[in-house]
This record gives sequence, C-alpha cells and structure tokens, in this order.
Amino acid sequence: MRESGDAFHLAIPARDLDEAHEFYVGGLGCKLARRYGDRITLDFFGDQVVCHLSAKFERAPELYPRHFGVTFRSIEDYDRLVHLAETRGLRFYAKPFTRFETMVEEHSSFVLQDPSNNLLEFKHYSDPRMMY
Amino acid sequence: MRESGDAFHLAIPARDLDEAHEFYVGGLGCKLARRYGDRITLDFFGDQVVCHLSAKFERAPELYPRHFGVTFRSIEDYDRLVHLAETRGLRFYAKPFTRFETMVEEHSSFVLQDPSNNLLEFKHYSDPRMMY
Amino acid sequence: MRESGDAFHLAIPARDLDEAHEFYVGGLGCKLARRYGDRITLDFFGDQVVCHLSAKFERAPELYPRHFGVTFRSIEDYDRLVHLAETRGLRFYAKPFTRFETMVEEHSSFVLQDPSNNLLEFKHYSDPRMMY
Amino acid sequence: MRESGDAFHLAIPARDLDEAHEFYVGGLGCKLARRYGDRITLDFFGDQVVCHLSAKFERAPELYPRHFGVTFRSIEDYDRLVHLAETRGLRFYAKPFTRFETMVEEHSSFVLQDPSNNLLEFKHYSDPRMMY
Amino acid sequence: MRESGDAFHLAIPARDLDEAHEFYVGGLGCKLARRYGDRITLDFFGDQVVCHLSAKFERAPELYPRHFGVTFRSIEDYDRLVHLAETRGLRFYAKPFTRFETMVEEHSSFVLQDPSNNLLEFKHYSDPRMMY
Amino acid sequence: MRESGDAFHLAIPARDLDEAHEFYVGGLGCKLARRYGDRITLDFFGDQVVCHLSAKFERAPELYPRHFGVTFRSIEDYDRLVHLAETRGLRFYAKPFTRFETMVEEHSSFVLQDPSNNLLEFKHYSDPRMMY
Amino acid sequence: MRESGDAFHLAIPARDLDEAHEFYVGGLGCKLARRYGDRITLDFFGDQVVCHLSAKFERAPELYPRHFGVTFRSIEDYDRLVHLAETRGLRFYAKPFTRFETMVEEHSSFVLQDPSNNLLEFKHYSDPRMMY
Amino acid sequence: MRESGDAFHLAIPARDLDEAHEFYVGGLGCKLARRYGDRITLDFFGDQVVCHLSAKFERAPELYPRHFGVTFRSIEDYDRLVHLAETRGLRFYAKPFTRFETMVEEHSSFVLQDPSNNLLEFKHYSDPRMMY
Repeated sequence: MRESGDAFHLAIPARDLDEAHEFYVGGLGCKLARRYGDRITLDFFGDQVVCHLSAKFERAPELYPRHFGVTFRSIEDYDRLVHLAETRGLRFYAKPFTRFETMVEEHSSFVLQDPSNNLLEFKHYSDPRMMY
Repeated sequence: MRESGDAFHLAIPARDLDEAHEFYVGGLGCKLARRYGDRITLDFFGDQVVCHLSAKFERAPELYPRHFGVTFRSIEDYDRLVHLAETRGLRFYAKPFTRFETMVEEHSSFVLQDPSNNLLEFKHYSDPRMMY
Repeated sequence: MRESGDAFHLAIPARDLDEAHEFYVGGLGCKLARRYGDRITLDFFGDQVVCHLSAKFERAPELYPRHFGVTFRSIEDYDRLVHLAETRGLRFYAKPFTRFETMVEEHSSFVLQDPSNNLLEFKHYSDPRMMY
Repeated sequence: MRESGDAFHLAIPARDLDEAHEFYVGGLGCKLARRYGDRITLDFFGDQVVCHLSAKFERAPELYPRHFGVTFRSIEDYDRLVHLAETRGLRFYAKPFTRFETMVEEHSSFVLQDPSNNLLEFKHYSDPRMMY
Repeated sequence: MRESGDAFHLAIPARDLDEAHEFYVGGLGCKLARRYGDRITLDFFGDQVVCHLSAKFERAPELYPRHFGVTFRSIEDYDRLVHLAETRGLRFYAKPFTRFETMVEEHSSFVLQDPSNNLLEFKHYSDPRMMY
Repeated sequence: MRESGDAFHLAIPARDLDEAHEFYVGGLGCKLARRYGDRITLDFFGDQVVCHLSAKFERAPELYPRHFGVTFRSIEDYDRLVHLAETRGLRFYAKPFTRFETMVEEHSSFVLQDPSNNLLEFKHYSDPRMMY
Repeated sequence: MRESGDAFHLAIPARDLDEAHEFYVGGLGCKLARRYGDRITLDFFGDQVVCHLSAKFERAPELYPRHFGVTFRSIEDYDRLVHLAETRGLRFYAKPFTRFETMVEEHSSFVLQDPSNNLLEFKHYSDPRMMY
Repeated sequence: MRESGDAFHLAIPARDLDEAHEFYVGGLGCKLARRYGDRITLDFFGDQVVCHLSAKFERAPELYPRHFGVTFRSIEDYDRLVHLAETRGLRFYAKPFTRFETMVEEHSSFVLQDPSNNLLEFKHYSDPRMMY
C-alpha cells in the first residue's frame, strides 16, 4: 500500500493549455494547483500530473506501451468515474469492458483520450491484491 | 492527499524485460508483482508501473514533456533514495540539485535514466503544500 | 479530532473573481476546484471555501466578530505559511504575534487580508488541546 | 483530503451567548470547549467555531454570500443530522432538497438558522470528488 | 492499540455539578458534551466521563484500588498536562514522580484530585509496550 | 475522537485475582498483560484496566454513580459482545435494552457484573455524535 | 492491533527456489522483493517471508506444531483467497472448514501446502476479538 | 505496507507451557490472549503466536532455515527491545550486530532463544524499503 503523504508525479505533453485545463479540471474534476505560461500542474486523484505545452504530443495514440491512470480500490469510485465521464461527454478511447474474465486478475477498465491524445486508463480489480 | 488504497498506474516501454527487471527490482528496490512474456508489473513505491516490451522506447531522452517519479513527503525518504542510487550505481540523467531556490516552490530533485531511456524524477519540496 | 473525509465549507463574498483567484491560488497556494461565472470553489487547506461574486463585501474590515482560518497542529506548518505569506508579499492585517503568553491558551497567530477584505487568521497552539 | 490534526476555525457574531450555547450545544450537539465573558468556543463537528458577543449580527439573513457548514462524506452522517434537526426542532432556513440533479455535482443540502441569524448549510455529494 | 472510533466511558460521583464543570472544563480543558439536572457528560481526552450528582463520593480518597486517567504515548502530551495542571493551580494528590526506575516498566506519573475526591492518574511509559 | 496511541486506564478492586482473571480473560476475552502478587493488568478493548486485590470491593452494586465500559462505534461490535456474553454465560446486571428511544440520544445498552461486583456497561448510539 | 509500519518476518526452508517463486509469486500472488543465490524474500500479504534453500524441509508435514499464515479481518479477503487458491489450483492440505462452531472462537480456515511442504493456514474469525 | 486489521499467525512448538508463558509474557512483554491445556495464544507485537505443547521442538537450534521475528520501522522500537531483553536477562542466541554494512540492505539485528529453542530475530533497516 502506498504512503498517503507522498505523491506520484507524471509529466505529459499538451498541445494547448486551455484545452488541457478544460479537460482535466472542467471535465475530469481534477483540481488546478498552479498555472504557468508553459504548463499547468494538477491534483489528479491525489497525485500530480503536469501538462507541458509541447509539440511532441502523440498524433496516433495507441494503448501500448504508454498510458496512465488510477486503479480504484472500491468499485463505487470506479462506477462514479464512469458516470462522470458519460454525463460530461468525455471522449472514450475504449468503453468500459472486462479483461481476464474468470481469472483472478479479472478487472473492469475503460480508457479516456485527452485533447492531446494522452490515454488514461481507469481500472478496478475484483481482487485488490491483483492491483499490481 | 491521495487515498492509500488506490494506486496510480503507468505503462512504459521497455526494450528488454530482463534489463527492466534488473533496474527496477535489483536496482531501485521495487517489488516484482507479476511477469508475463510481454511485460512485467511492478510495485513502484506503492504504485503500479508496467514495463511493456516494445520497440517504441525513446532513443534520445529529454526531460520534457515526458517523465515520471515520486515526490516524497519526508526529506529522509528522498535522501535514502539518493543514497541507494549512488551506492548501487544507478545511472543519473541529472544529479541532485535544487530548483526555484528562495521561492516557495523550492524543491530538491534528481533524475534517473532506466535502460530503455525512461526518465524518473524524484523530488522533495520544502513546503509540502507545493507538491502539486 | 475531525474526520478527514468530511470538509468544512465556508462561503464568503468576493468583489472580483480574478482577484480572488490570484490571491487564493497564486498567493496562498490553494487549489482551484471549479470556476463558474459567479463564483470559484477552492480546496483551502483541505476544506472548501467558495468565493461568491457579491457587492456585500466588507469595506472596513475588523477582526471581530467575523474571520476564519486554520489552526495547525504542527508549528512547521504554521511557520511555512508565515514564510509563504512573506515571500509572496501577501497583505498582513496583523503580523505574527503571540496571544495569551504564559497561559495554557498561548498561541501564535497572524492575520491576512484578502482583496475583498475578508480576514484570515492562522494559528498554532503550544498545547494542541487548546485548539478549541 | 484534509489533515485530521488541523482544525478550521471560524468566528461569527452572537447577539446572546446563552442562546448560542443552547443552539450549538443543546441543539446541534456540539461540545463546549470554553466560555468567557464575551465568547464561547465550540468543537463544531471537529472544527472550531467561536461565537463572539456582538451587535454586528445579521438582521435579514440571505444564503449568499455568507454561510458555513459541513459537507459529509457519508450519507448516513448527513441523514442523522437531518433527523437530529427535526427531532429537536431546530429552525430550518431551507428544508432538505437536491441541487444540480442529474449532474455530477448533484448534492443534498439543508440550511439551519441560528438564533443570531447565521446560516449553516450541511451537504452531501453523490460523488465525493465534487465536495470542493 | 485501541480503536479510535470507540470510546471508553466512566461514570463517577460528583458532590456538585458546577464544581465538576469548573474542574473538568475550566481546569483540565475537557469539553462539555451535555448537561442535565443530575449529571454532566464530558469529552475527557477523547473518552467519555460522566459526573453523576451523588452523595456517594469518597470522603478520604486513597489511590488504591480506585482511580482513573490517561496513559500518554508521547512525553510531550504528558509534559503539557503537567504544565497545565501547575499553571492553572489544579490540586495534586501526588506530584510528578518516577515509578519502577531502571526497570522496563519505568514510567512517569502524577495524580490529581477533583473536587469530589476522585483521583486521576496520568502516566507516560519509557517503553510504550508496557502501557498495559 | 480519541488518539489511538494513548490509553485510558482504570484501577478497580478485585476480591480475588484468579476470579478476575477468569472473568476478564477467559470470559470477556481481554488479554492479560501482566500479573503480580497484588494485581493483574489487562488490555481491556484496547485500554488498560488494572484489578487490585482489595477488600474494598462493592457488596451491593448499584449502577450509579460508578460504572465503566465501552461505547462501540459499530453496532456489529456491540452485537458480538452481547453474543459473547450470552454464549459464555457471563452475569448480566441488566439485559440488553434501549434507553431514550425516539430521542437523538437513543442507545442500546447492557450491563455486566464482574465477580467483585464492578459493573460494566457497554453501549451503542444510533447517532455516534451522541457518544459523549 | 499491529503497527502497519512494522513487519512480521518468517524464515522457512525451500528445497528449490524456482519452485518457491512459482508458488508464492505466480500462485499466491505475493510480490518478489529480492532474489539471491540461496534465498528469495517475499512481500507476503504485507509481511516478510524468506525462503532459504535448504535440505531441512519437512518430508511428512503435519499441521502441529508448525504452520503459519494470515488471519483476515474481513471475510471478503478470506473468500477471495479461497477463490484464488481454487482458480489457480494450489494444493490444499485442508479444504475450507469451520472450527469451534457455535462457540465465540468460531472461525473459517483452510490450509495450503507449498512445494517444500510448509503448511499455510488462513483464517477468519466471526468475532475479530478472538483473532489472538 | 500491511493491513493493521489483519494478523500474521505462527504456530510453534513448546516443550512446556508455563515456561513459554514466562518467556513470552513475563519476559518479552507479550500479552496472553488465551490458555488451553495444550497451547497458549499470544498477542506477539500485534500478531498472533501460538505455542503448542509438543515433543517436536528443536534440540540444536540453528538460525537457518527457520526463525521468526519483527522488523521494526523505527529504531526507537528496536532499541527499546534490546534494552528490555538485556534488563530482563533474556537469552541471546546472537547479540546485536550489523549485517550488510555500507550496503543499502544494511540492518541491525539480534536473535533471542526461547526455552523451547525457537529463535526470534528482531531487525531494523536503515532504509525501510529494504524491509522485504
């Protein structure tokens, strides 16, 4: 189990900061921590995501080998995020589905696509010990 | 503050899984959760990092716009990791330095480079409220 | 001791939302949760403060009977906020001082004034049992 | 998420301290921490509310721009407070209602009025990420 | 380790409720939860103590076999209470002393006497495993 | 809410230590921390109870003004203790009943009698805020 | 209740380290912390188990007097482990059964056998106070 | 990090239960949970150790491959246990020493021997991430 006082941080490209702000704060419900001319820093489900203004964003996104997201311990948190994404019309790269059914590693998953083509996967495992 | 029961997860490319295993488990001291033919999943400081075997790894790594890591709440955890990286001879992309000195956002930082050229930044902020 | 899952929430007037945003996010280091045409909602040290655009802001602020703020358990958190307020040039209504010295209720305190003349008092008690 | 060791504190006017004591301790079930000639300090759901004897209380209370209260994480805590307020005959400024229905920001809410016309709003959000 | 959500509760006699209120709230800094005609209920360091108006209070108090109190995990909490008791002139039945010196069970202790002759012992053990 | 690292401690009389050991450890399921010639110290639901060998035990026990016990946050913990007391045939001074029904202070309660006539009351409140 | 920051550690014999790795990591879902020539160290449900290569493993395992395992607080965790063991075809020394039925000490239990004949018992008690 | 609500449990042989009780409760300061004719169950630093009366105890104890103990997160807890073992004259199989000095895996360690020749190792790592 991770330390609640620490934070994972991830830096990703954004082709436009207003767009990123609109997607992460107005859409996903993250909080804006700071905004500079070349980046915005976000409280992303308790961890830090920084969107750097950059031309090096992905043009043709694929799920592998790069994506990021949150694995929720409780199915309620997962379901609420599905609901939020649907209610607010966020863009799905992959609709909610089940992977590894009947196996111990079984989990629910869906993938969102941000305006700069970063892919965000959110998951929930039937058995939380399989979260890693 | 993040929920200790949830986990951030990040998928990154690896050009060779044995190499990745050696760097993350034998070097950084992460724990190996599972190994498949095409990927290894790691307990990375309490969060999940998955190394996918892939030819799409970075050849000429730059710190922006893509990197990831952990921001530690306690300076002791940060210092111990510096010590571990030096003792075990991990490859530094950037040696420990201080950014934004005299400002409230002041923090210590260093950057490691894994065998597939992924960049890992570890940080500690003088004022933990600036962690985001 | 309060429940960490709940949140205190406080609604206050703001004569201008950009000004409020600049003071609370850019200055105090709070996080912006949402912005609407008539208000901004903030993650204020873990609790919720909402600034409502309103002409009913105070013209001649006095500390009593209305003010709000945070009482910190650790002196380090208090000192860091003094440092932040000084470094970033926030407006002090009252500089750091000690109240009730030699008594059990002794505490450190300072008061900030936001652009709409709301007064924010931050405190630290020598004996945390006196925080109430 | 807030630190459970810290406390939000709020100072409000009271036209009469016995009345305030009766409402907050005898009615709302807060605990009395201290009483002085000019104020009472309360443990208000784990945070600190201080009622200062003052002639500057509101004569014609309106919900905006000033009110305060608690946003509960669990619906059980919210429902119990509705039950308490009804059982003990506390004065409602607004009966329990739902705001932003069908939206992600949907929440239950009710508003109490203390004897000095301070308005207290208690809330519960369907999605706790919207608490801010 | 005890559950923080539960509470120990103890009922003791009081020859006079105002006196008890003055000692426990005004003196020891406990919080008053409720007052009825025949008793007051207190938040006593997080647990519940109820003072029942009764003629069956002790006339000639002895430490054994009946007393109660708190064993603090941190020496700072213990020292602060000594300071509070001295500053506010509470009545000591036994001044701070050390018991079982040089043994593993070594602990600091002092005993207060309330107006109804109930004895309150507060302790701190060098080795917290000996708290039981 | 109380600190989980601290412990309430209570000293009570016992006319016979083997009897007390049998009741508290073999019956109530407390853990024995230490035994001396003149007393046994117990981990009583996470707090400390010490039974001192003494002739000053109560001959004709009454619930007021002296008794002690635990107020459980969860009804499951309360119900399990009722079940334990019935299964193991502990002596009830008062069978489970409801006090203050229809009021906010409503709670379930039962009272056990130990071999030295100390009375132990265990409670559960419908509204945990009324635990004090 | 145990300290979550500490860890129980147990050293056991293994006749073959690959076999042990396969059973504990691939089967039970433990995480591999380190591997040396003569041992592997595991994060076993949050505690540490070390498998030492040794010829002193048990040839004819019996449940008494030596076995080890985890007692789960929640029945969900227990049931998930039963499901995992069945789905992955781990070897049962004893199938799930109930011990001490109708008594307060009632608990569910099953026993696995690792490739070196170490016996692992997993339990869940109806009344968590009986876990010791 | 392990779950504080779960418990590791370990069953070991004891050639004599009174001896085991004396060593674990009177010596190490563990708490006695229950005693039956053929075993005693202990709260061993928050986990469960059961001593089963058995002739299968070790005659010539060796540290490998079987031993058990606790790895402490804080050096204070480790030092206090060294002090306890020395003060109370417990039998050392190995006096406190340092293993893997100058390496990241460096840790302090000592080994006690119980009356049935079970070996108990207690450790503290300079870097808590190496605890596994």
